[in-house]
Amino acid sequence: MEHRHGGDIYADDLTAEPLDFSASINPLGMPESVRQAAMQALAGCVHYPDPQCRQLRRAIAAREGLAPGQVFCGNGAADVLYRLLLALRPKKILLTAPTFSEYEQAAALAGSTIIRFPLREEDGFAIPEAFWDAVTPETELVIVCNPNNPTGQVTPKWLVKKGMERCRSAGARLLVDECFHDFLDEPERIAMTDCVPENHHLILLRSFTKMYAMPGIRLGYCLSADTALLERLYDMGAPWSVSVLAQACGVAAAQDTVFPAQTRQYITKQRQQLGEGLQELGFTVLPGQANYLLCRMDGVPDLVQQLRERGILIRSCDTFAGLDGNWFRIAVRTEAEQFVLLQTLRQLVQQRKV
Amino acid sequence: MEHRHGGDIYADDLTAEPLDFSASINPLGMPESVRQAAMQALAGCVHYPDPQCRQLRRAIAAREGLAPGQVFCGNGAADVLYRLLLALRPKKILLTAPTFSEYEQAAALAGSTIIRFPLREEDGFAIPEAFWDAVTPETELVIVCNPNNPTGQVTPKWLVKKGMERCRSAGARLLVDECFHDFLDEPERIAMTDCVPENHHLILLRSFTKMYAMPGIRLGYCLSADTALLERLYDMGAPWSVSVLAQACGVAAAQDTVFPAQTRQYITKQRQQLGEGLQELGFTVLPGQANYLLCRMDGVPDLVQQLRERGILIRSCDTFAGLDGNWFRIAVRTEAEQFVLLQTLRQLVQQRKV
Repeated sequence: MEHRHGGDIYADDLTAEPLDFSASINPLGMPESVRQAAMQALAGCVHYPDPQCRQLRRAIAAREGLAPGQVFCGNGAADVLYRLLLALRPKKILLTAPTFSEYEQAAALAGSTIIRFPLREEDGFAIPEAFWDAVTPETELVIVCNPNNPTGQVTPKWLVKKGMERCRSAGARLLVDECFHDFLDEPERIAMTDCVPENHHLILLRSFTKMYAMPGIRLGYCLSADTALLERLYDMGAPWSVSVLAQACGVAAAQDTVFPAQTRQYITKQRQQLGEGLQELGFTVLPGQANYLLCRMDGVPDLVQQLRERGILIRSCDTFAGLDGNWFRIAVRTEAEQFVLLQTLRQLVQQRKV
Repeated sequence: MEHRHGGDIYADDLTAEPLDFSASINPLGMPESVRQAAMQALAGCVHYPDPQCRQLRRAIAAREGLAPGQVFCGNGAADVLYRLLLALRPKKILLTAPTFSEYEQAAALAGSTIIRFPLREEDGFAIPEAFWDAVTPETELVIVCNPNNPTGQVTPKWLVKKGMERCRSAGARLLVDECFHDFLDEPERIAMTDCVPENHHLILLRSFTKMYAMPGIRLGYCLSADTALLERLYDMGAPWSVSVLAQACGVAAAQDTVFPAQTRQYITKQRQQLGEGLQELGFTVLPGQANYLLCRMDGVPDLVQQLRERGILIRSCDTFAGLDGNWFRIAVRTEAEQFVLLQTLRQLVQQRKV
């Protein structure tokens, strides 16, 4: 099976390191706190990592206001997702279309059947209240990505909570993927953290990858009051899955609250600039609120390849159910990087008109 | 399920970093080549790792004289093992007892039934020719650890090859775990690498963890000519499982052949010293050939705990099928560390006699 994602900067046709708008990573880079922790942790790599990530789970729990037993850490959020699906083996999973494609890959391994609820382009791919009517007694798991990947659409908290109640009465679990919520202007208005203690059927998926620009280090986690489920996740894959380095970086990241706040300010400004620039060039741009924008331009199917030949990566959305090759996901980056992207796009668009 | 292994230096009752004889890691530490690669790779951690580990697989293939497509890399050898069992889902697996306990954990996830072939203490837990008679048409997978963990016993190559033929005719796959073969005096006399191209049912499991003292970085791999199987392993868990750091360290390790040779010389000397020291104290010591020794002392069930209170970790073998709490696995370490261990053991043994 072909795993196509953003961020593949290692392909043989790329001669130099590209400008990467295909992976949605903090353009400010790794914070100094995390970089220092990584440097210091290298000496400890001659030991096995703590298979239970005790110190890291305490640090995350302290930040989230939960208990360490309500935290499970994995080798990236993807590892946590796969373990969850292997532990739950849900017969039917309800997803939106479009959404992050890795859910379906993990579901395939768990032998689950996917029910896709199509979101409407004319609604900006927002999740409507009617989505929750698709939860039936046969639904064992609902996965909602908030903000959604690749649309950047935010589902308001009241609507997620309504779905949470619907899942409870239907006997379904609800997995809310909040891997990008850190980039919202006011993440605390969206995060479902406060609902975790009282809702055993609720699981929140989180990542350190995007905000702390450490995708190469691999660290993600989930939060749930179902501690028996979290205990079982240790057996759903290999032990020692979170490296010494990842654990040390995670502790530093969990304690660094200044950097996310700085990032949010920066992203808000850059996102607006990127959106306006793309609109000027004729793209239809969705009003996403994350650190990427979903945009559309018809009739330029080779746009991704043309940019690639110029050393710039963006993400074609042809592998997202409910989208096609006319849709592109473009990460919010620095002013200089966005300038190069927009200049290059301008040339490509003008050539086309000639 | 309790994952009990060596190397847990993070437990709350340990106030300082212990002397760790419970994990079998190269006592010379991480080679400078790998440490430098790790330092240099930190900057690249702002990118996702190559999900296909292309450069690393080329480096390993070059060292092993195989093709890159015959190499699969994972987040430690344990990750590779779990993916193999999830891909194969063998109904019946034949194992020796004792052997590495993680095979059974991985088999549990894959829903496999384990058939244990008991090795005899009076044979030094060597694998006899009769072991291969236990391969029946129902056996779908045989796992042999060579040298065996925790005994250090080496199965001669002619006997592994005989088993390989037996597996072929029975329609079984053979997984040879060679994670410790690097520490043997003459690893090339034992390694089954040259048999890989012609035997599609043969899989070799390898690790960088032990020889290059990088257990905290997580990197293992397997070798097989069944490239279709290796392709499927990518779907048996999360993508990007091998971190940027692990891939960089692996490339450096694969190219460093001086360090393993130096290590082997050192281990041979230290192993002899450790074995003689333990025998002097009244331990029964098996003539293991790896970087650890299996030894026995009856009637001292609290030995592990007594050492632990003195800041020294050794591995009780009570969790290995076919052994009990009178057996201990002790890693070969530096002269200074072994001196402290043997002195402490001497005190404990003398106290007992009083």
